[in-house]
Amino acid sequence: MLAKVLVLNGPNLNLLGVREPDIYGSLTLDQINDRLKELADQLGVELEFFQSNHEGELVDKIHEAVTGFQGIIINPGAFTHYSLAIRDAISAVGIPCVEIHLSNIHAREEFRKQSVIAPVCIGQISGFGELSYMLGLRALADKIYEPT
Amino acid sequence: MLAKVLVLNGPNLNLLGVREPDIYGSLTLDQINDRLKELADQLGVELEFFQSNHEGELVDKIHEAVTGFQGIIINPGAFTHYSLAIRDAISAVGIPCVEIHLSNIHAREEFRKQSVIAPVCIGQISGFGELSYMLGLRALADKIYEPT
Amino acid sequence: MLAKVLVLNGPNLNLLGVREPDIYGSLTLDQINDRLKELADQLGVELEFFQSNHEGELVDKIHEAVTGFQGIIINPGAFTHYSLAIRDAISAVGIPCVEIHLSNIHAREEFRKQSVIAPVCIGQISGFGELSYMLGLRALADKIYEPT
Amino acid sequence: MLAKVLVLNGPNLNLLGVREPDIYGSLTLDQINDRLKELADQLGVELEFFQSNHEGELVDKIHEAVTGFQGIIINPGAFTHYSLAIRDAISAVGIPCVEIHLSNIHAREEFRKQSVIAPVCIGQISGFGELSYMLGLRALADKIYEPT
Amino acid sequence: MLAKVLVLNGPNLNLLGVREPDIYGSLTLDQINDRLKELADQLGVELEFFQSNHEGELVDKIHEAVTGFQGIIINPGAFTHYSLAIRDAISAVGIPCVEIHLSNIHAREEFRKQSVIAPVCIGQISGFGELSYMLGLRALADKIYEPT
Amino acid sequence: MLAKVLVLNGPNLNLLGVREPDIYGSLTLDQINDRLKELADQLGVELEFFQSNHEGELVDKIHEAVTGFQGIIINPGAFTHYSLAIRDAISAVGIPCVEIHLSNIHAREEFRKQSVIAPVCIGQISGFGELSYMLGLRALADKIYEPT
Amino acid sequence: MLAKVLVLNGPNLNLLGVREPDIYGSLTLDQINDRLKELADQLGVELEFFQSNHEGELVDKIHEAVTGFQGIIINPGAFTHYSLAIRDAISAVGIPCVEIHLSNIHAREEFRKQSVIAPVCIGQISGFGELSYMLGLRALADKIYEPT
Amino acid sequence: MLAKVLVLNGPNLNLLGVREPDIYGSLTLDQINDRLKELADQLGVELEFFQSNHEGELVDKIHEAVTGFQGIIINPGAFTHYSLAIRDAISAVGIPCVEIHLSNIHAREEFRKQSVIAPVCIGQISGFGELSYMLGLRALADKIYEPT
Amino acid sequence: MLAKVLVLNGPNLNLLGVREPDIYGSLTLDQINDRLKELADQLGVELEFFQSNHEGELVDKIHEAVTGFQGIIINPGAFTHYSLAIRDAISAVGIPCVEIHLSNIHAREEFRKQSVIAPVCIGQISGFGELSYMLGLRALADKIYEPT
Amino acid sequence: MLAKVLVLNGPNLNLLGVREPDIYGSLTLDQINDRLKELADQLGVELEFFQSNHEGELVDKIHEAVTGFQGIIINPGAFTHYSLAIRDAISAVGIPCVEIHLSNIHAREEFRKQSVIAPVCIGQISGFGELSYMLGLRALADKIYEPT
Amino acid sequence: MLAKVLVLNGPNLNLLGVREPDIYGSLTLDQINDRLKELADQLGVELEFFQSNHEGELVDKIHEAVTGFQGIIINPGAFTHYSLAIRDAISAVGIPCVEIHLSNIHAREEFRKQSVIAPVCIGQISGFGELSYMLGLRALADKIYEPT
Amino acid sequence: MLAKVLVLNGPNLNLLGVREPDIYGSLTLDQINDRLKELADQLGVELEFFQSNHEGELVDKIHEAVTGFQGIIINPGAFTHYSLAIRDAISAVGIPCVEIHLSNIHAREEFRKQSVIAPVCIGQISGFGELSYMLGLRALADKIYEPT
Repeated sequence: MLAKVLVLNGPNLNLLGVREPDIYGSLTLDQINDRLKELADQLGVELEFFQSNHEGELVDKIHEAVTGFQGIIINPGAFTHYSLAIRDAISAVGIPCVEIHLSNIHAREEFRKQSVIAPVCIGQISGFGELSYMLGLRALADKIYEPT
Repeated sequence: MLAKVLVLNGPNLNLLGVREPDIYGSLTLDQINDRLKELADQLGVELEFFQSNHEGELVDKIHEAVTGFQGIIINPGAFTHYSLAIRDAISAVGIPCVEIHLSNIHAREEFRKQSVIAPVCIGQISGFGELSYMLGLRALADKIYEPT
Repeated sequence: MLAKVLVLNGPNLNLLGVREPDIYGSLTLDQINDRLKELADQLGVELEFFQSNHEGELVDKIHEAVTGFQGIIINPGAFTHYSLAIRDAISAVGIPCVEIHLSNIHAREEFRKQSVIAPVCIGQISGFGELSYMLGLRALADKIYEPT
Repeated sequence: MLAKVLVLNGPNLNLLGVREPDIYGSLTLDQINDRLKELADQLGVELEFFQSNHEGELVDKIHEAVTGFQGIIINPGAFTHYSLAIRDAISAVGIPCVEIHLSNIHAREEFRKQSVIAPVCIGQISGFGELSYMLGLRALADKIYEPT
Repeated sequence: MLAKVLVLNGPNLNLLGVREPDIYGSLTLDQINDRLKELADQLGVELEFFQSNHEGELVDKIHEAVTGFQGIIINPGAFTHYSLAIRDAISAVGIPCVEIHLSNIHAREEFRKQSVIAPVCIGQISGFGELSYMLGLRALADKIYEPT
Repeated sequence: MLAKVLVLNGPNLNLLGVREPDIYGSLTLDQINDRLKELADQLGVELEFFQSNHEGELVDKIHEAVTGFQGIIINPGAFTHYSLAIRDAISAVGIPCVEIHLSNIHAREEFRKQSVIAPVCIGQISGFGELSYMLGLRALADKIYEPT
Repeated sequence: MLAKVLVLNGPNLNLLGVREPDIYGSLTLDQINDRLKELADQLGVELEFFQSNHEGELVDKIHEAVTGFQGIIINPGAFTHYSLAIRDAISAVGIPCVEIHLSNIHAREEFRKQSVIAPVCIGQISGFGELSYMLGLRALADKIYEPT
Repeated sequence: MLAKVLVLNGPNLNLLGVREPDIYGSLTLDQINDRLKELADQLGVELEFFQSNHEGELVDKIHEAVTGFQGIIINPGAFTHYSLAIRDAISAVGIPCVEIHLSNIHAREEFRKQSVIAPVCIGQISGFGELSYMLGLRALADKIYEPT
Repeated sequence: MLAKVLVLNGPNLNLLGVREPDIYGSLTLDQINDRLKELADQLGVELEFFQSNHEGELVDKIHEAVTGFQGIIINPGAFTHYSLAIRDAISAVGIPCVEIHLSNIHAREEFRKQSVIAPVCIGQISGFGELSYMLGLRALADKIYEPT
Repeated sequence: MLAKVLVLNGPNLNLLGVREPDIYGSLTLDQINDRLKELADQLGVELEFFQSNHEGELVDKIHEAVTGFQGIIINPGAFTHYSLAIRDAISAVGIPCVEIHLSNIHAREEFRKQSVIAPVCIGQISGFGELSYMLGLRALADKIYEPT
Repeated sequence: MLAKVLVLNGPNLNLLGVREPDIYGSLTLDQINDRLKELADQLGVELEFFQSNHEGELVDKIHEAVTGFQGIIINPGAFTHYSLAIRDAISAVGIPCVEIHLSNIHAREEFRKQSVIAPVCIGQISGFGELSYMLGLRALADKIYEPT
Repeated sequence: MLAKVLVLNGPNLNLLGVREPDIYGSLTLDQINDRLKELADQLGVELEFFQSNHEGELVDKIHEAVTGFQGIIINPGAFTHYSLAIRDAISAVGIPCVEIHLSNIHAREEFRKQSVIAPVCIGQISGFGELSYMLGLRALADKIYEPT
């Protein structure tokens, strides 16, 4: 059976490709998801997508992932910097998680440099546009299928 | 065609006029909205009102405003001090926004002095009770109708 | 007529007893609620339970408590450390509130030591597992029924 | 008898309209004052104008306002961020005061975000160019003429 | 044999009921102790009381508790915020300890919010007047008698 | 009947005049007390002296002062900077207190500039050698005998 | 020949006795000066008084004091907390200086606890109303006339 | 012609696979490089490897890369947190650079969370063991070969 | 026509050569100015000198320099560390400015290391006694006469 | 005559060897003292031992050491981090003092890294278990007997 | 015999004139050195040049300068902000040193405003491009040849 | 076979005995090493000495010590406060290490009080001149030869 990975996107990421393309690129979230799906097929991974501007919905979704998911890719958007609720959710379900960012958060405003979520993830990938998602998927697939 | 302005109120502002009148005045939010509507008529502006205690709903509403709204008046309530999600939403939709506060936030607890949202607004008006909304509307109307 | 107390649980507490039992104990939230109900019967208090991972729903619920509730027990979970919206809600409704925590938040990560909500509560109880809820209920009952 | 309002401008505001028009607009201080006067006539308020680059002169002027003035509009310029002397003067005379700024100080350098004067004012208006003065005058007139 | 619990009170608590009753209540420390004794009888616990304004005497007493005591209730008073010596004593003797406070320390001056002692206790109870002691005793009894 | 004033000296002040005369002057504590007594006679005040290197003894002494003393002069020595226990004691007994220092603590190491005790005193006198005590006594006598 | 002492008062102290008598007392600055003069006569000291709301005038006056003055009493008002210019002036002229405050600055807002001027004075006296001036004069006279 | 990428490793990375395998994995740096070379062949990229414990040698190497290299992958090791010299070197040569880390630096000591180098890189990849290098290479290749 | 340069000196610099010669040297300000004039002659620059202990006068003077001056040399004295009014004045007039200091401010008290004015100057020269002025003049002349 | 050295141990060190042997070793304080005595005999030094959990008693003891002691070895335990009273005592008596610690305080909690006492000692030895005392004694003996 | 001055340049300064000419100017380091040499001839000073990207080589070079050099001009580049080793080297050799910077470090990123090296230099010159070196040489020559 | 200990000295320690003898003593590093060798002979330990001003060379040397060394004594000089590379090297090789300092770093500038290296050492010895090395050697020998 294929491993299942949940792809979570936080607040304002539904606007991708539509607003501020110079910062976030010209691809819509759907287009990114399509590309991710292609890669997932190659890697033998099944994906489910979820975007929400509501912190609580993201927490709920992470809880639901306990049944049937082997990994989570999350772009928490602005929640990166203050949502301890999402941090605790990831920590509680114990599913391997990769935090990704389109822009290089380490090169932006001071308050964007710190992630309260990254400490409970496997790792963080930041700055490569839509490619960040692909890299995160590769990292997760590698983690899921790696022989111990 | 009339310019349209979205009037957003954040958490606990539904309680206006009912609880703690000594701090926030004795007008209900509906009464304030009625007064705003009167002023809007004079200024030739159409208003839509929305209040929510849910950060995500405010973000959703700001996104929807992309179609058809020329301005936003927001009293983010407690979200003023931590909702980077609302900040990013305003920044993403690019609609002129005015942040207003009933009380003078600069004269209260230390943590209420900083707004994470004001930096992406045109300006901030703080301390004039319900009049803050009226002043905000005037500022916005001026911005919308000003000859360049 | 019996006094009514609202028992609020914040994000991730729906996972109690299921995940990380070594940290949070092996009782589910339902089991804790059952025990609380037993104690409430002894103390002559009626309870209503509500859990949510959504900050906004907790704020809404606190507002609703204005009608008919004499006290609130809240375990705000991760919201303890940043939800000024919940703080303002408690402050606005003016219902006596007790903040409780399963684990000893003063013995964990630095950011867990500070509560933005405790300053508007009667007090805080932290570190006694499910017993924290029972102690909170006793404190509240005592407050409600105490002769002035 | 008409209420009298003192309009105070701090350091460098005498250069308005002459230097850095892209930041502060192309109106001179005199032109802004003329517009303010028009609005004052409508609102039934008499204005007196005073600009100084000297902190002490501003303090002196605030003292003098004790006799005959019902309100103060102040744009403290750079003094906003360190003149405790002006803060104490406003606090001592007890005349309602509104702090205004042409630019949105919350969107500029970190040190411009904090006002040592705002805590002793009724409120602060920031970011609307010359309109900030008009809004401040409206707020003050409303305060002066409001029925208690 | 009955479990023995040491009830420790730090500096200025000997003045309870005599000075500042509006803050600390009108019960004297002896009266609180009497009530505690009643509860202890119900819970099957033997109590010993000790109050001192001397940090060193409190440390000495904690050391002596090694022989024969199964629990400690401590209201460290002002020592809460700086006595690392008491912290180390509790940590060294390894007896389960509950920190209690009459007032809600999280709602007072900034320096009273941090406890250097709580991190080595089971938990902290703060804000319920003399009831804080009772709740602390219940928590301790529960801990001592709980089946593993 | 004469007003009675307690003169308290904290840690290391028993060494006055013996060690480091260049910093603390060449008078012993007894010699200073003699001079104080002379001044007290002139002012119609009775003095009692107490020095201790033990924080707890100073707290005990302050408690005892409740009976029969109208004022306290305290040189808390190093306790100035951390003894919240002494702060709380002064605050609890409610006797007018003057904090004095031989050296100018505002001109020494950074950590000596802050006093945790001064906020609960009438005032602080710092930097005048043994004269600081005399000035403190004058201030206290004035306070005690001043017509309301 | 009599020693001469300059009595300097900073911003807003010209309002003494007129505004906020509950905080600063009901004596005017002239009345305080009269009382100071009486004491000066007793102590064999000649006084000169100067008040200004202008930092620069206070600096100028300190410079002029080089000729003919043996001491300075200064109540820098709000300048206490930021006027490094006054600090450097005192330090440059090398005349013994005593900093005094009517209110107990250590018991007020956090920013009023630090003096940038006190480190270059002999000492600081804070909290005794008009008596602070008298005590400062005594301290200075003692310093001037003390046998070395 | 193939694009050339420089793979830089900072201090202590020569010990990879030999020491602390539980933290850094059991592969030696040579083995990682071999795997990188395989991937590089697939991606049509030529690699050059350089490791040094000397900050200066890394700076020199970055300078040399100006001629002939289209990208840099750097694991700066401990230099991540303080080598402004390496930061300036990357910034000066203007070659696209990816910062990678074997361990998740955001989940370690506080001082390891901040990178002084990441702000001048395209992005940062952290936490995936040797896979971090592969992901970094993919990101760089994508950047180099992407159609504009 | 010769370029004109304004030489501004802030508070206490009128005391140069008279007080504290060990720190600031034995030359008076006039003597320094004479030497500057000699150098100015060589460099083909005309100088105007102005010293004031009043922040406002310095701001006024900077404004006046708009007409006819090509450069400013300023030793802001103590204003270096807090006069945002002077900073804004320099920034507003847009005349090239060099900040100079007699002593090495980087080797003195912590608060003297930061200049709020230097960020709007061409550069800062600190530590070379009267030579600092000469170097500043050379830098300015070079800037004024440099071929673009 | 033999040099005399006072060996001071602060709070909780009387529990050595009895509690937490994995942290502090299995030797009791008496056993350590015996070993120290052996070494003292070799070095020609006479020792006196004193342990107290009371800050005041340690201060008293340091004062007494003025007569007859040439050196002090102190393990201040938890007092290391806040007892300015002990710091001042050591500084006042002027006897050479060595601060020692059993555990490596630089490798423990953040608050244990700073010593308020070390700045007035000759030096600090930390981390070598009971050997720390021996090394401290050697350092002191060397200091006492070294030819100038 | 001519005085000898060592001209030291730190990391990345070998790239001068080649990279980022808009920031650092279009002159190469060799061209700057040639101009310096011309000025040195006029001033009667002999120069030796040394550039390195290695902190250790700069330290070595400073040590060697003990023999035969009367002054050092150093542009420490990025080492300015963290190389305590270079600071200690300059301090140890005791040769007069001038720190210079091409750009105005006080107008750049926050971390570039502080120099750990400047406190042990005579002074600092910052912001004048290649002219900074010339001014530094003049300052040094003046220092070396000044009559005492 | 004898245990081998590596004695490492960081930047500027090659100048020992030659420069600043009042701070660092009059012994050269060679003379200290000779004395260390004598002690090593007594303790049955073989020594190897290495000094470098290059951080990278110290890291290299620590790596080489993996083969054949049972202990390291390191005086990191200025690297104490920032060389995370040396910290990681010591941590990686896992050889017991003692950090020593000639001067009492806890009594010097604020930035010298913190060691980034000490947390990965057995302990730290600071303040005893050349004796610090001897004490460090004793501590290490004791550690190496102690029966487990």
